[in-house]
Amino acid sequence: MLIKFINANVLNKNFDVLENYDLIVEGNRIKTIRPKLTNDDTTYDRVINCNGNYLIPGIKNSHTHNAMVFLRSMSDDLPLGDWLNKYCFPNEAKLTYEDVYYFTILGIMENLSSGVVGSMDMYLDNYAMAEASIKTGFRVNICDTIQKFNKKIAPEEYYVSLNNYKGDNGNLVKYTLGFHAEYTNTKELFERISGLTHKYKSAFFTHNSETKKEVDECKERWGGLTPTQVFEEFGLYDYGGGGYHSVYLEDKDMEIYKKHDVVAITCPGSNVKLASGIAPIKKYLDYGIRVAIGTDGPASNNAIDMFREMYLTTTLQKVTNKDAAVLNAKEILKMTMINGAFCLGHTDGDVIEEGKLADIVMIDVHKPNMQPLNTFINNLVYSASKINVKLTMVDGKVLYEDGKFYINEDEEYVYKKCNELLTYLLNR
Amino acid sequence: MLIKFINANVLNKNFDVLENYDLIVEGNRIKTIRPKLTNDDTTYDRVINCNGNYLIPGIKNSHTHNAMVFLRSMSDDLPLGDWLNKYCFPNEAKLTYEDVYYFTILGIMENLSSGVVGSMDMYLDNYAMAEASIKTGFRVNICDTIQKFNKKIAPEEYYVSLNNYKGDNGNLVKYTLGFHAEYTNTKELFERISGLTHKYKSAFFTHNSETKKEVDECKERWGGLTPTQVFEEFGLYDYGGGGYHSVYLEDKDMEIYKKHDVVAITCPGSNVKLASGIAPIKKYLDYGIRVAIGTDGPASNNAIDMFREMYLTTTLQKVTNKDAAVLNAKEILKMTMINGAFCLGHTDGDVIEEGKLADIVMIDVHKPNMQPLNTFINNLVYSASKINVKLTMVDGKVLYEDGKFYINEDEEYVYKKCNELLTYLLNR
Repeated sequence: MLIKFINANVLNKNFDVLENYDLIVEGNRIKTIRPKLTNDDTTYDRVINCNGNYLIPGIKNSHTHNAMVFLRSMSDDLPLGDWLNKYCFPNEAKLTYEDVYYFTILGIMENLSSGVVGSMDMYLDNYAMAEASIKTGFRVNICDTIQKFNKKIAPEEYYVSLNNYKGDNGNLVKYTLGFHAEYTNTKELFERISGLTHKYKSAFFTHNSETKKEVDECKERWGGLTPTQVFEEFGLYDYGGGGYHSVYLEDKDMEIYKKHDVVAITCPGSNVKLASGIAPIKKYLDYGIRVAIGTDGPASNNAIDMFREMYLTTTLQKVTNKDAAVLNAKEILKMTMINGAFCLGHTDGDVIEEGKLADIVMIDVHKPNMQPLNTFINNLVYSASKINVKLTMVDGKVLYEDGKFYINEDEEYVYKKCNELLTYLLNR
Repeated sequence: MLIKFINANVLNKNFDVLENYDLIVEGNRIKTIRPKLTNDDTTYDRVINCNGNYLIPGIKNSHTHNAMVFLRSMSDDLPLGDWLNKYCFPNEAKLTYEDVYYFTILGIMENLSSGVVGSMDMYLDNYAMAEASIKTGFRVNICDTIQKFNKKIAPEEYYVSLNNYKGDNGNLVKYTLGFHAEYTNTKELFERISGLTHKYKSAFFTHNSETKKEVDECKERWGGLTPTQVFEEFGLYDYGGGGYHSVYLEDKDMEIYKKHDVVAITCPGSNVKLASGIAPIKKYLDYGIRVAIGTDGPASNNAIDMFREMYLTTTLQKVTNKDAAVLNAKEILKMTMINGAFCLGHTDGDVIEEGKLADIVMIDVHKPNMQPLNTFINNLVYSASKINVKLTMVDGKVLYEDGKFYINEDEEYVYKKCNELLTYLLNR
């Protein structure tokens, strides 16, 4: 497939705007970016007229539990304990492969409508998640959610099978070693996963220091060591990785993150809604820590909306640092796109450049919230919303355009199916 | 005009859902709300099939400077002083009637796309704002922005002319006594406006305690009195009114708000972006203070997006009170719709009920972020965005539907005109 975007404003690798450019996609790669060519004899499978809209690198959602859409808005405004124990855990215990498959597809649709081309997902059925990704054409990096109560703990099997799922060879689906969290695992599991990170020279991702309680209880269990320090003790971060949430890092933890290039993956929407706290992102940046952004699952957020997360990431730093000059739009885009691609293991899908993966989003500026066009990237971070996502292309294929999905599943069928599966789940 | 919505789920006055209802609008009022009628011989000017989408009361934006769209994204990530003195004030000094008229229309379009049916607006040319409202059909309550540097201070003239602008008789356009803030006015102006509030038994609105600096400097000037206490001394709040922002109220201020039914109008998006602070809304509610929500101007926010403001209002209280159970969705809707209508002076446009004003928004639930349909009002507050606004009706007229505007101005012309006016303004 050869697709040409014309009359585009293109955000280049430095997030500067190239005005009135053509962009040509061949297969799943960006072939050419050049000023508008008036005489072009090539035959294209499709020519997409951008009408002055902007092409930006695909947004990456670096932490989510997509299938948790089924719990969206079921149990809000509750203390964290009640929310987890009365709603999440009992219902999650009933999930089937089919449930996780369809709920993940619904989550993928929500990602696409937010300009997201891939997510680092963690949930209860790795194969159902992989299948949803292959079916829809959406990128996923499946981080394992091993915990001591699991029936099936098979990281080595997953590592082999999911990094080449049905011949995909890591193009759409990747698998990353990880586990749920310190407090849901055991010394034996730490050792086992650490062994695998060394065997495969692999990164390791997990929930880390989301709440103060989590850190305090870990320190009680481990003679004063924080989760980060425990993970370092076991060599889990020897090949890098990431900490989902990373709200309560101590100075020593930050040194460990910096030393091993562990990514602090912030989920500000979830953290404020569950009253967990506000991560000191400005301080992490001062330490030289790499930061990426995720939505967390829709049960705690309740949206998969990376525009909201980008806005929250910067504004919450401004208000907590009492300084409106902290964290500008370019820094946020770097976290979302470049560092997001790093987390997902798709570093050649980070920016728009010839030869890079064709993971591209068209931002509609023919909407009042993007006018006037003073500074596009500021409009993008401080004013844009899902209403501005005109098209989402993943791996050279248009999966979302003008509000419609092209994901090998009918959208109304997915809504109906998800509501039916949920009713059935709640009643059994 | 007789318009019938069919196959609707209707949010009633208690924010409970009436499933599968018809709603009939006659002229500018809601005539009938009833379970779906299969045999209906009446002839309607239009029948709108909601396909299971939800009809909610129009959202009210209780504080904005709509015309400030022209400064959107021009000067972000700056300390407050630089932002105001280097960008806002010098450019605002050059604004013409035509500038304010078109920039206000752009702001109105952004409100409509966010499901907003009316705003309490404060800016530099009251007549241009009134004209934009009449032209487009959008409700506005113009709060005067008198300050000591103004060339024209004519509240009495405005009170008479704008409360019946071109025969509108306060239907779309209202005028409310107010001034910019304590720090931009004088004792003489306090006395003059207070005289008018008493003469007309009128409410009084102003910026109040937005920043700590504002409160500290006021106390220095006025022997320890806060802005709220100064206003009370002058009798400005004797007939109620509101305080825009209300971030730094002291306990005595809260007592004054409660005593005079002064509305605390919170603008969380602006307050976090400008690093002003987070208003203790939970405490205000405990005091029995009425709270409403606004976006502030798009120069400081940078969007007019009441979904973002609703989300921020509740989640910022959860995180600062360290309690996820604080401030539920119903309380947020009450602030936005009922208290918003109170601020705008359109108390008969507060909820959906027979006889009320036909200020109605259709929320599209055929989008992934609203599925599954566990709890609609939670979806609305915690997950909805502009993408879910399918239709905005003001005063019985559809002004926005499926992304298109019906406001007696061509939307592309407005964008072009605003960019041209801005270029001309910056270069003169």
